[in-house]
Amino acid sequence: MRIARFSLNGEPKFGIVDGPELVVLNGHPLVSGYDTTGDRVAIKEVKLLAPSIPSKVVCVGLNYADHIAEVKNATGSAEPTLFLKPSSSIVGPGDAIVLPAQSQKVDLEVELAIVMGQIAKNISEAEALDFVWGFTIANDVTARDLQFSDQQWARSKSFDSFCPIGPWIETEFVPDGQELSSRINGDTKQSSTIDFMIHGVPKLISYISHNMTLLPGDIILTGTPAGITQIVSGDIVECEIEGIGTLVNSVV
Amino acid sequence: MRIARFSLNGEPKFGIVDGPELVVLNGHPLVSGYDTTGDRVAIKEVKLLAPSIPSKVVCVGLNYADHIAEVKNATGSAEPTLFLKPSSSIVGPGDAIVLPAQSQKVDLEVELAIVMGQIAKNISEAEALDFVWGFTIANDVTARDLQFSDQQWARSKSFDSFCPIGPWIETEFVPDGQELSSRINGDTKQSSTIDFMIHGVPKLISYISHNMTLLPGDIILTGTPAGITQIVSGDIVECEIEGIGTLVNSVV
Repeated sequence: MRIARFSLNGEPKFGIVDGPELVVLNGHPLVSGYDTTGDRVAIKEVKLLAPSIPSKVVCVGLNYADHIAEVKNATGSAEPTLFLKPSSSIVGPGDAIVLPAQSQKVDLEVELAIVMGQIAKNISEAEALDFVWGFTIANDVTARDLQFSDQQWARSKSFDSFCPIGPWIETEFVPDGQELSSRINGDTKQSSTIDFMIHGVPKLISYISHNMTLLPGDIILTGTPAGITQIVSGDIVECEIEGIGTLVNSVV
Repeated sequence: MRIARFSLNGEPKFGIVDGPELVVLNGHPLVSGYDTTGDRVAIKEVKLLAPSIPSKVVCVGLNYADHIAEVKNATGSAEPTLFLKPSSSIVGPGDAIVLPAQSQKVDLEVELAIVMGQIAKNISEAEALDFVWGFTIANDVTARDLQFSDQQWARSKSFDSFCPIGPWIETEFVPDGQELSSRINGDTKQSSTIDFMIHGVPKLISYISHNMTLLPGDIILTGTPAGITQIVSGDIVECEIEGIGTLVNSVV
């Protein structure tokens, strides 16, 4: 099942994707369940929004070996490298990624995004997927020059609009070697499969849950494969994951 | 004026501190203003809570020269060093700081905390204080061993209970050389004044607002002076700032 969040007459709503239509839901699915209003709207008639507004976005750096190789001063580690993006960096499908004046090199990074469905604290790898609501696509937009010049990654990853997510949450996605890719103006820049993650999805959820309590709606970005590429004003950026869909954003 | 948040019959409420009492408010002051219910309660009869639950906690590292000297592998920089703590790390006055199994050395760090009152994006230093609701005290609790072993600081600073704030928000505090100090079981460990900040309060607010949009209730931690000291189970930790008060937490 695919759950989208969208704007209907100026109000945010959730809906179940049914072909070209959305079956409108009452309230937030994590609170009210999949309680339908009986209304349907065409997807092309509404503005899709980021499918979750999390209390935090926990990110995993350097989680694909090919990406570690291309980021020359980086080394992989036995444990996941964590960092945070603020919720103010989130935008939805179709929204613009706004390039900040402070950076001369902003890159795209396609990533599989985990959306939590339950409070998770100190959970095991074996039970980790039971705490997941579903999966979506994220672009971990990064001001690469600031990432290298700053000691910490927070500034380079936290600008407004630097965390596009969407287009919806796929609740039936089971991580199993799916392809992920990114394109700029139709040209493929990243192409890999989630098999190449160093730390897999259950490990990441368990590891992070031993560090901090994950809340419903919280998002985990699982790292990006090789092929990170600069984006410039006017670009159309597509991030695609097999079994979920395609997240499209403009760049201004 | 000092604004506290507290639990009354299991419900979170705000109140104005009036000597040993709280004048109970209707709703959230940033939404409803200082609308009093007419009720008063004794502070000692209620549980004080963290005075703000922010969408993000933006922190400034290495902002006192004496602290940079004691953290030997660190260097100061011309621009503030930013990092984030998740809202799940926040606890209130009187709450326990819980030492995680992953760390063998957890330190206290007293810091002046800015609480934002308005949406702030790309604001100047001159107008920065107009966007502030008030100031409180924070303890930027840090797993020092993990901070040094990890490339990024997120994990070492994000454990649940690693961001005690309180005891209340002082809306009339104007940064002007006030003393800040920390004590463990009554022994002073840190003692400095906010004059020794490398980047002052208006600079930090303006700088961060050019990086990410600050929302009402968001918190900025402004860095810690020298004297960071390990805390162990059973300790009572006090963080004091002249003109605001004292934040007291236990350690377990």
